[in-house]
Amino acid sequence: MSTFEKVGTYHFVTEQYQLDFRGRVTIPMIGNYLMHAASNHASQRGFGFSEMIEKHTAWVLSRLAIEIKRYPEMSEPVTLFTWIDEAGRIFTSRSFELTDGTGDSVVYARSTWAAIDLQTRRPVPLDEKALGVYIADRLCPIEKPGKIAALDMETDGVPYQVKYSDLDINGHFNSIKYMEHLLDMFDLELFREKEVKRFEISFLSEGRYGMPLMLYKKEIEPDRFTMAICHEEKAICRAIALWGKG
Amino acid sequence: MSTFEKVGTYHFVTEQYQLDFRGRVTIPMIGNYLMHAASNHASQRGFGFSEMIEKHTAWVLSRLAIEIKRYPEMSEPVTLFTWIDEAGRIFTSRSFELTDGTGDSVVYARSTWAAIDLQTRRPVPLDEKALGVYIADRLCPIEKPGKIAALDMETDGVPYQVKYSDLDINGHFNSIKYMEHLLDMFDLELFREKEVKRFEISFLSEGRYGMPLMLYKKEIEPDRFTMAICHEEKAICRAIALWGKG
Repeated sequence: MSTFEKVGTYHFVTEQYQLDFRGRVTIPMIGNYLMHAASNHASQRGFGFSEMIEKHTAWVLSRLAIEIKRYPEMSEPVTLFTWIDEAGRIFTSRSFELTDGTGDSVVYARSTWAAIDLQTRRPVPLDEKALGVYIADRLCPIEKPGKIAALDMETDGVPYQVKYSDLDINGHFNSIKYMEHLLDMFDLELFREKEVKRFEISFLSEGRYGMPLMLYKKEIEPDRFTMAICHEEKAICRAIALWGKG
Repeated sequence: MSTFEKVGTYHFVTEQYQLDFRGRVTIPMIGNYLMHAASNHASQRGFGFSEMIEKHTAWVLSRLAIEIKRYPEMSEPVTLFTWIDEAGRIFTSRSFELTDGTGDSVVYARSTWAAIDLQTRRPVPLDEKALGVYIADRLCPIEKPGKIAALDMETDGVPYQVKYSDLDINGHFNSIKYMEHLLDMFDLELFREKEVKRFEISFLSEGRYGMPLMLYKKEIEPDRFTMAICHEEKAICRAIALWGKG
């Protein structure tokens, strides 16, 4: 057993460039906070980026759900907790809780990860035992990200081509950038009237530089939108955004 | 005289989401570091965002030049120094120096700022005396950002429309996002072979949500590109990127 706690705790202060026009931290930026905490939590416990690379593997985010009770604003000190929920043969789950300066929980998130072989880009079995040691008995009171039903593509799509600044350190379309492009499909008026209460995304295959994509979105019930990013008519990711009054 | 030093010092550690596919901090992210330091330096000395808002004014970045000797990489502890060079009636200049963990200077930057009235969006006179107190006698060994010559628009432009995630807290096209979109015009191959040694940008007018823009770039001499973002055939910003071997 390592000297590290099961639950990782990360403190930081929100910065101006992380805010949108309403002065609230954006969902993609919350996503970056989560990725940062996940990455540090993993490497401090011996299964981080460098350790994975040594084994010619890398973590890939498979699903993510974020629920926001209150968006952090300018220069807020926040604390992010992250821990492992489950460790299976192919997938492991990680939860997050973000608290504000008064200790109130303002954001919860749940995620599912797989490890892939860097050469074949196929999943490899996880070390369930090594991860299992860190499973924490802490609750994350939001629904897990699930399978997202396919969207019928009758709606008009928006073309997009993957660019330099969309790429992550592995040279693939950065998971968080998918979220940015999906949210950019909503009209600013909606961001003025309402806010995203829950954002859920499921990654199906990897995006690459120059890939011509189509972005789709459809309101399937009031305030509930299903979205997809497609390459050659096949979804590379699907997402759901639930909007509500702030 | 306040208790704060003339030169502001900010420590941080680079994070994975700030890196590009080469594992180097991107130029727009360096830009975010600079804006963060500038904003803190100003507010700690009584002329920050909140104090400006009280007077119904805001700082706007007019020109910025960044020179990179070495791009910071993963999890590097870096220190950013910023200080005021000059304070005139309309413009004030601020310089930056970024050092790495060994104390080596890896990035220098120089910037010019104006204050605008939030209602009229026109420049207002600066408080030269209040700013003047903080002018530091420290050298920044790179050329100031200058006037950038207009680009003839024979070259093909790339259309772009300003989106939600392009907006800053004032509801305008975020200065740093201009840089991201300009750099995205370069082919990935160029990022593999070379790197940007100097990036210079001049902001001419404000971009707004939904504005249809055209992005242009032209290699005017080997490895020297002039770029522009235009709205209705008028440049809202111009930039220069100098590339060289890493």
